[in-house]
Amino acid sequence: MTQWIAGQWIEGQGEAFASISPYQGDVLWQGFGATLSQVELAVQAAREALVAWKALSFSERETLVLKFADTVKDNSELIAQTIAQETGKPLWETRTEAAAMAGKAAISIRAYQERTGERAKEVNGNQVVLRHRPIGVMAVFGPYNFPCHLPNGHIIPALLAGNTVVFKPSEQTPLSGELMVRLWQKAGLPDGVLNLVQGAKETGIALAQSKGIDGLLFTGSAATGQLLHRQFAGQPGKMLALEMGGNNPLVISEAFGELDAAIYTIIQSAFISAGQRCTCARRLFVPIGDKGDELLVRLVSATQKLRIDQPFAHPEPFMGTLISVHAAQSIVAAQAHLETLGGEILLEAKNTHAAFVTPGIIDVSSIEELPDEEYFGPLLQVIRYQDLKQAVTEANNTRFGLSAGLISTQDDEWQYFIDHIRAGIVNRNRQLTGASSDAPFGGPGASGNLRPSAYYAADYCAYPMASMEGECAELPAQLSPGIEL
Amino acid sequence: MTQWIAGQWIEGQGEAFASISPYQGDVLWQGFGATLSQVELAVQAAREALVAWKALSFSERETLVLKFADTVKDNSELIAQTIAQETGKPLWETRTEAAAMAGKAAISIRAYQERTGERAKEVNGNQVVLRHRPIGVMAVFGPYNFPCHLPNGHIIPALLAGNTVVFKPSEQTPLSGELMVRLWQKAGLPDGVLNLVQGAKETGIALAQSKGIDGLLFTGSAATGQLLHRQFAGQPGKMLALEMGGNNPLVISEAFGELDAAIYTIIQSAFISAGQRCTCARRLFVPIGDKGDELLVRLVSATQKLRIDQPFAHPEPFMGTLISVHAAQSIVAAQAHLETLGGEILLEAKNTHAAFVTPGIIDVSSIEELPDEEYFGPLLQVIRYQDLKQAVTEANNTRFGLSAGLISTQDDEWQYFIDHIRAGIVNRNRQLTGASSDAPFGGPGASGNLRPSAYYAADYCAYPMASMEGECAELPAQLSPGIEL
Repeated sequence: MTQWIAGQWIEGQGEAFASISPYQGDVLWQGFGATLSQVELAVQAAREALVAWKALSFSERETLVLKFADTVKDNSELIAQTIAQETGKPLWETRTEAAAMAGKAAISIRAYQERTGERAKEVNGNQVVLRHRPIGVMAVFGPYNFPCHLPNGHIIPALLAGNTVVFKPSEQTPLSGELMVRLWQKAGLPDGVLNLVQGAKETGIALAQSKGIDGLLFTGSAATGQLLHRQFAGQPGKMLALEMGGNNPLVISEAFGELDAAIYTIIQSAFISAGQRCTCARRLFVPIGDKGDELLVRLVSATQKLRIDQPFAHPEPFMGTLISVHAAQSIVAAQAHLETLGGEILLEAKNTHAAFVTPGIIDVSSIEELPDEEYFGPLLQVIRYQDLKQAVTEANNTRFGLSAGLISTQDDEWQYFIDHIRAGIVNRNRQLTGASSDAPFGGPGASGNLRPSAYYAADYCAYPMASMEGECAELPAQLSPGIEL
Repeated sequence: MTQWIAGQWIEGQGEAFASISPYQGDVLWQGFGATLSQVELAVQAAREALVAWKALSFSERETLVLKFADTVKDNSELIAQTIAQETGKPLWETRTEAAAMAGKAAISIRAYQERTGERAKEVNGNQVVLRHRPIGVMAVFGPYNFPCHLPNGHIIPALLAGNTVVFKPSEQTPLSGELMVRLWQKAGLPDGVLNLVQGAKETGIALAQSKGIDGLLFTGSAATGQLLHRQFAGQPGKMLALEMGGNNPLVISEAFGELDAAIYTIIQSAFISAGQRCTCARRLFVPIGDKGDELLVRLVSATQKLRIDQPFAHPEPFMGTLISVHAAQSIVAAQAHLETLGGEILLEAKNTHAAFVTPGIIDVSSIEELPDEEYFGPLLQVIRYQDLKQAVTEANNTRFGLSAGLISTQDDEWQYFIDHIRAGIVNRNRQLTGASSDAPFGGPGASGNLRPSAYYAADYCAYPMASMEGECAELPAQLSPGIEL
């Protein structure tokens, strides 16, 4: 029973697929994907549920969302364990994901009111009122790296605003996706308000192409996002909001301050979640010269010592696995490719076993045409630079623009950085992988079109309805010229 | 000298075209459109000007925008006369357009600060700062119905936010477009910050397809907007914000209140600007029965008496011409088509001479498959209905969703209406063609994707840059598990 449609668990009728443990290789989940007609059933269920769901008051929907948050809290250890099992991320980290899921309710309620909601004022004898209305049936596509937290960040705002949802988790994390949906069921969400379809590319295409959806909220790769953007061509009436990847630069100034703190910040930026956060530092800009050399030596030695183990190991690991053996092999292949192009390996990334990859650091300074790709794993490219201005220019030399960082104690350098860097998340002396939940999340260029994650998600879940209102129609003191009644 | 590129007026090298007076038939403007390579020159000029323009402080850009507003005020009668000449709209109406242009500066400055701008707060020892950055080079496509006010509503917010602009006016109003640009020149805008390319479809395609633009703000027809949306497929990194048309319903309740006031509100909704506002009522829902019959009789007689004349006539006309003879003929053709389908003409729209069309009212109640088209002129379709619920359902039976209105003194009817109608501008007892300048403007469905007009224009002229900042990198009290420095 892999699909949840109109409140019923039904068997998929599409292709068989499975979720395999990335560290043990055993099967965690298996089932069949949703066929095109099952996807249509789910969309239809969401369409039918929409009428009653959007007719509820905001506070009625809010109550259900808060009930879900409570259910998440009650099941937080189960959630953390499930995500850890399926993604190979350390348990301590997946516990933060479970906490973020529950916390999303309060944040989204505040964002709904602040970004959308309702307000009124009196202007020249008219009531001028701004209300918001749901977009309709929203498709939600989730990624595998935060298989609950990220789609949850689309689903909660969408439901709060009065939309109904068809959710397709990543085909790499069907177990986590199913668990999240079961918690909504447990919380008592009315039938059809949220529907689950499982499957890979074909299911995704069917859902994105369904005539019955009014919008799609997506977090995932740039390649898939662009494909979706093509699918939506000529349909401006549908809300397509894409959160995609980055090729994020972290620039280390000569004035990086305390060495250990800088090293810690770099490691947290590049290797947390085994480099599987979209905000992870991919390119590290290090000044040419002794200070930079010293920093790199310390970075390599500290990175070498990072503890890597399965999610539940004791002592706790810093990193677990990548999402799959295939993903692990891709990182090693990317490293080999960069080496072919002229890169010099400072610390070799190795696919030791299963989907484990040890973190790699490669100096790519001498590569003339550095590929502008997002290598989604623990592979950090080092670029040595002569002066900060040149570093910032090169940092901007990417089609992406998600995150960027500067480690510097100098205020003038920071001012130059924020005046010239092109990215949506720009941190100073803080890990790139930290972002405020009540700020907009995302970036320009190939990193996305709108901001469907974090605080501004509300903007893409409701449309504004602006009204001028009077108790009755009135004749003005002076009619328009040329009218005689 | 038809193109303004990098601060120089140069001759177009593309196809010849002209602007013809819609009421006298004389040539008001003639010239050559921009070729593809001239469009590229303009984009290049905007790209080069971007560096210095975005480096200015907001208050420096604000000063220039306010200078432009003063220049508009100083030239408001010239603007009003030029628009009246070129569009055939009455002078009293184009004077309001000139005033709206000047007023846009203050509104956009407030919107920039409120919707985008900068704010900071302290969270757990971090500075959390939200800044905004310009999108880059923005193309602006203007429509002919408000040939200055509407593109001005894109250009001012774009420039304020630090973008540079390439502006293509409608090929039906090159004179008004040129005048507006000359006022920017007069106000002292630096070279290349705003560029003008004139031309028709080919110029538009060249501009929309230019690799050098980062976004496009558009007000115009749904057909062109959809074409642009297709052109932008697979490029989610470019901001495409579309404001398009509507097939707007105005629902008259049995409880419409005072008859004259209702008639006045209907006329102002359907026939102002000769029906050439995107918010104009296209479909009038009238209750079956005596009250509805009486209202229609009065509506026909009052509409018949509307004064129609050239823009500068005395006494002042209510309506002037449509934009062109072609547009006038299209409205008469639409009326004939609706009649063929079973429509019953209550008041015949006639193309009397030049681009003048007398207002038409046609009862389309018996047409089974009513075309869901925007007839952009003074042609009002009447649909008789049995009960309000049915009227609202039928009112929503459109791919568009721009504006909708209810004339009713009953609060419960209004509540039902706003709970069920699908539109972005929803007025009660007020003309549909009135919208607040400090509210978002636009609607769902085929009426557009985002809200590039009015108050929310700011949202599509800047991207958010969210920062976590600290004076220096720090080691936390407790390192992440598995790290040893």
